[in-house]
Amino acid sequence: MDGPLVMGVETTVDAFHRGGFYLVQPAEGAHRSGVDATVLAAAVPDGFAGMLADLGAGAGAAAFSVLDRCPQARAVLYETSPLMAACARAGLALDGNGHLKDRATVVEADVALDGRAREEAGLPRDHFDWVIANPPFNDPKDRATPKAEKAGAHVMQADLFARWIKTACAIARPGGGLSVIARPKSVVEILEAMRGRYGAIVVLPVHPRPGKSAIRIVVTGIKGSRKQMEFASPLFLHDEDGGTKFSARAHAITNGRATLERFDGCGEA
Amino acid sequence: MDGPLVMGVETTVDAFHRGGFYLVQPAEGAHRSGVDATVLAAAVPDGFAGMLADLGAGAGAAAFSVLDRCPQARAVLYETSPLMAACARAGLALDGNGHLKDRATVVEADVALDGRAREEAGLPRDHFDWVIANPPFNDPKDRATPKAEKAGAHVMQADLFARWIKTACAIARPGGGLSVIARPKSVVEILEAMRGRYGAIVVLPVHPRPGKSAIRIVVTGIKGSRKQMEFASPLFLHDEDGGTKFSARAHAITNGRATLERFDGCGEA
Repeated sequence: MDGPLVMGVETTVDAFHRGGFYLVQPAEGAHRSGVDATVLAAAVPDGFAGMLADLGAGAGAAAFSVLDRCPQARAVLYETSPLMAACARAGLALDGNGHLKDRATVVEADVALDGRAREEAGLPRDHFDWVIANPPFNDPKDRATPKAEKAGAHVMQADLFARWIKTACAIARPGGGLSVIARPKSVVEILEAMRGRYGAIVVLPVHPRPGKSAIRIVVTGIKGSRKQMEFASPLFLHDEDGGTKFSARAHAITNGRATLERFDGCGEA
Repeated sequence: MDGPLVMGVETTVDAFHRGGFYLVQPAEGAHRSGVDATVLAAAVPDGFAGMLADLGAGAGAAAFSVLDRCPQARAVLYETSPLMAACARAGLALDGNGHLKDRATVVEADVALDGRAREEAGLPRDHFDWVIANPPFNDPKDRATPKAEKAGAHVMQADLFARWIKTACAIARPGGGLSVIARPKSVVEILEAMRGRYGAIVVLPVHPRPGKSAIRIVVTGIKGSRKQMEFASPLFLHDEDGGTKFSARAHAITNGRATLERFDGCGEA
């Protein structure tokens, strides 16, 4: 349905988790949230009751998804786009998000900052219990996107993962988690950036269906752990002969009723 | 059944591919071939009719598996252990391997060599159409192995993947393939060693069964390609409720009747 005007831009209000929460998103042009955000959110363990940071929060889909599933969690949403940050704030003001409002803060900040500039931008050191990150995917070689806002969200810079993961590690407490969703081609950049910072790393590929190559990976790690990495059993979004219908597992995950299978035994609901 | 004495060591003769070929292996103590070798062999496309190099060939399981499935292929088996190289040669002399004998050569050489020493050891430059490699897995932190021969095959050195992959690239023609089987924890070392040398990289995780983390990865690439990497749909060795029985796909692969699903459309038989 139609949403409020945000910074003069027309928006929609979209239900997630079957009405568990709502997002205010620009009606067109900008990056709109979908499966990625809810799959990323499913990397946070069930029962999570700590402080979550969402880097590249957009309109808030991933953070709201965690807050909706984990009633004791709190979150800070970091978003560099003024429009998207305003959408996230407008989302928190919706009647349907009353259960999230007091547990979420939106900070307009560039998570690629470093050192003192990063702290001054509102990214405190050694603070968060879990960090989720949905870095802009598309690199300049990919299909051009005409809309300026979308381009801003999608421009890939060479060391983007390195800078985002450095920030994620800096703001996490020792033993805190990180979960990143990205394209499969980025796995080495991500693992190199996590090396020496994170252990117990789990790479979980997300495939459209059995027999098809992965379209995403979710990489999770624990700050300071020295445990070896694993490849988790993948998520298939659709069954082999399931057409466009989600697999049972993907349906549960995208609706906040299951987590990604994890190394620590936090399995599906 | 009992095999010939090889360098004074008792051996067994074991059937693979349901009698498609046979291996002479030390009866005990040394590394004995199993699923890994046949899964690695399945990374070579159906219809392969070129020159194959098998790095760390052991008794020959992977190379023989390719030669049995691909009747026009030829292979050079490189093995540093004199005993295992002798077993591979003894295998080629078996009556049941008459269809392999004239297409395979065993070279006792250390594939970690470099430069002129490598060429002098019998590893020619720009020569092979496909290279398969089964580098020694276990590192010194793993469970100690009492038998000297096994220890020799299993001692991991820090830059082992770097050296093996450098050799693999040197001996492959441009456009030639490489397939490596390894533990999941080694994925970054492998991908770093392949960077700038290989493209069209496909990482295929091998899981015991759905829901369990991968126990192996098979990484395939094409020398000189600039195509982006992919995560292939994984191989599950067993079905979810299948006990110790192989899944249909794993059964076909380990019996030389299917290949690993691949980026180039060379699918299962």
